[in-house]
Amino acid sequence: MGSLNAAASALDKDVLLFEVPAPRDEEWISHLQNKYPGLEIRWHTSELTMAPKALPKEVYDGVTLLVGFMPHPAEMLPKVRYVQLMSAGADRWITNDLYKNPNVTFCTANGTHAPQIAEWVIGTWLMANHKFINYAEEQKKATWNRMSSLHIEDSPGLRMGILGYGAIGRHCARLGQALGMKVYAYTRSEKATPEARKDDSYVVPGTGDPDGLIPVKWFHGSSKDSVNEFLAQDLDLLVISLPLTDATRYIISKEQFEILAKKKTFVSNIARGQHINTDDLIEALNEGKIRGAALDVADPEPLTDGHPLWSAPNVFITPHVSWQTPHLFQRIKAVVERNLEGLSGKRPGLINVMNKTYGY
Amino acid sequence: MGSLNAAASALDKDVLLFEVPAPRDEEWISHLQNKYPGLEIRWHTSELTMAPKALPKEVYDGVTLLVGFMPHPAEMLPKVRYVQLMSAGADRWITNDLYKNPNVTFCTANGTHAPQIAEWVIGTWLMANHKFINYAEEQKKATWNRMSSLHIEDSPGLRMGILGYGAIGRHCARLGQALGMKVYAYTRSEKATPEARKDDSYVVPGTGDPDGLIPVKWFHGSSKDSVNEFLAQDLDLLVISLPLTDATRYIISKEQFEILAKKKTFVSNIARGQHINTDDLIEALNEGKIRGAALDVADPEPLTDGHPLWSAPNVFITPHVSWQTPHLFQRIKAVVERNLEGLSGKRPGLINVMNKTYGY
Repeated sequence: MGSLNAAASALDKDVLLFEVPAPRDEEWISHLQNKYPGLEIRWHTSELTMAPKALPKEVYDGVTLLVGFMPHPAEMLPKVRYVQLMSAGADRWITNDLYKNPNVTFCTANGTHAPQIAEWVIGTWLMANHKFINYAEEQKKATWNRMSSLHIEDSPGLRMGILGYGAIGRHCARLGQALGMKVYAYTRSEKATPEARKDDSYVVPGTGDPDGLIPVKWFHGSSKDSVNEFLAQDLDLLVISLPLTDATRYIISKEQFEILAKKKTFVSNIARGQHINTDDLIEALNEGKIRGAALDVADPEPLTDGHPLWSAPNVFITPHVSWQTPHLFQRIKAVVERNLEGLSGKRPGLINVMNKTYGY
Repeated sequence: MGSLNAAASALDKDVLLFEVPAPRDEEWISHLQNKYPGLEIRWHTSELTMAPKALPKEVYDGVTLLVGFMPHPAEMLPKVRYVQLMSAGADRWITNDLYKNPNVTFCTANGTHAPQIAEWVIGTWLMANHKFINYAEEQKKATWNRMSSLHIEDSPGLRMGILGYGAIGRHCARLGQALGMKVYAYTRSEKATPEARKDDSYVVPGTGDPDGLIPVKWFHGSSKDSVNEFLAQDLDLLVISLPLTDATRYIISKEQFEILAKKKTFVSNIARGQHINTDDLIEALNEGKIRGAALDVADPEPLTDGHPLWSAPNVFITPHVSWQTPHLFQRIKAVVERNLEGLSGKRPGLINVMNKTYGY
C-alpha cells in the first residue's frame, strides 16, 4: 500500500469514476469534493444488468480510481490503480487485464452484503423448517386447517456448518448462534490464533462476528479430504459462503451429497451456482438424501426455463437477489470513503483488498 | 410454597395424572418412579384438539398433581393442588373452579414454546421483508425473473417493539438483536432493577434473554396511554407476546393502528387473536396503514372460512401452530421434573408459577 499512498497524497491528480447502479448522489459528491478538492469525480449511472457494456471513451479518459459495478475494457483504463467492486467476488473480472495487472489493487464490497444475504439464509432455513410455504398455499383456500402432519423443526441445539467464514458466513453464524445452534466454521487457511480469526472486511455495525468468537469448532484445508471431513460433522444446515475459484468449483458434488445424506443436511447456497454440481443436487433432492435446499444462485445461471431443478422436491430458488437491500449503496459508500482515506494517506492501508492469488 | 412442600415430602401420597398429547413415555415414567417410589403415576394420551372433554371418572380418582393439556371438571379433581399447563397462557382455564381455587397452584409451560414461536416471528418477518412468497410463486413458473420492482428490506438499525417481555418476547429480542435491530420492551410492571429484568421462567439453553440485557429501552404501564406511548416509538416491527387478560383484550384497535401508521409498523401476533380488533386490522391492511402482518392467531378462532382477513393484503396467517416442535414435550418434561423437585421439597419453590391476579 505504501507506494499507492505516496503517489496519491490528497488525490490531487486523480480521476474517480463511479459506474454504479445508483442515481448521482450530489450530497455525497460534494462531501468528497470538500475532503479532496483536487480530485475529479465522474458519475455514470448504469443499468442493473449482468451484461457488461463499454462506456463512451470520454468517460474512461484519465481515470485512476474506479468504483465499478461491471467489468470494463482494460485498454481504456491504463492509469487505473484502484478498482472498488460492488460485489463480494471478482469472478466476472478474472479474465480482465486490469485484474491480471499486479499494480492494480482490487477491493471487494465484502461486508456490505452480509446482513441481507445472511437474512436470506436464515429466513429460508426458518421458512423450510416451519413450513411457511405450505401454510401460504393453505391460506389461499381461506380455511383454518392445522395440517398437523407437517413436520416442523426448531433450531436450538442443531448444528450449522459454514463453508467459507467471510463476512456473510460470519453474520449467518451470528444468527445461528442466536437461534441456539452450534456453529462449525471451515476456512481455507488455518485460523489458529485470535488474531487470525478476526474479520478484516467491512462490518455493518451490530452484525457479524468481527472477532471470530462464535464457532465452537474450526476446520480448515484446501483438499477434498478436508472438505469431506467437515461435511461429515452431522450438520443440520450447510451454508456455502465461499468465493468461486478453480479450487472451489463443484466443491459439492455426488461424493459430498453422499456424506451429507447421513444427517440429511439442508443446503443453502448464496455464493455461486458452480459451487454445486446441479445434476447431483437434483438427484440428492429427488432421493431425499438431503432434507432440502435454498438456492439464490444456480448453474447454469440464469437457470434455464423449465430446468428440472425448478421443480425438484424441497428446493427454494430465488434469481440471485439475496444481495439486494435499499441500504447497499450507503454501505459501499462507507467502504469507498474508508479506502479513499487509505489512498490519500489519511489512514494506513485499505480494507477489503483482494488477494488475487486466492481470487478473493 | 412452604405448605405445598411440607404436605408432600417425597410425594408418597400423591397421584400424578398426565393428560398429554404424547404417547406414554415408559423410560421417563420409570425414571420418575425411581425418584419418587411412592408416587402413583397415570398417563392419558389425549388428542390434539381445542375441544375439552372429560375423561373417565376412574382416571381422575384421587389425583393430586395434574399435567394437563385441556381444562378438566373441577368437581372431579377435589384433591388437586398443582396443575401444570402445557401452554403459556391459562385463558382456557379462567372460568374453571380449579383455577379460581387459591389453594391450587397453576404453573405454565412458559419458556418451552419460546424457541419455535420466536423463530416463527423472525421467520415470517424475514419472509415478508425478503419477499419469499413472491419468489415461491415465481419459482412455479420455472423461469428466472429477478422481479426487480419488489421492495426488499433488511434489518440492521430497524426497531423492534415487544409488547410483553416474557419468555417468547425475550427470544424474539435475542434474534432481533442478532439481526442488528434495536429492541424496545414493554412490560406491565416497571423493570427498574437488574433483578426485576430477569426471566423467572424456564429457558431452553442457548436461547432468550434470561438477564434482560437486550432491550435498549424499557417501557411499562397498564394504561392505554402507556401502551400508546410505546407504539409511538417508530417501531418497524411490533411483536405481540402478551398474555390475554381483560386488560389486554383488543389492546391493538383502530386508535393504535393510527399510531402505527406513522412508521407503517409490521405487526406480528403469536399471542391470542383477541389482542387485535380484527375489523380494524383489516382496515389497516387494506389502507396500507401498516406494511403487513403475520398472525398465528385470529379472532374469531378458528378464523371462519372465507373471512376477509384471509385475503387482506400483506397478511400471512397460520392456524395457531407456531408452538409446534418435536421437542416440546421434552421441554415440558424438564419443567415438570423441576417442579416435582419443588413439590417434594428437594428444591425450593416452583418455576413458572402463575399469578392468578394478573392471569399469567
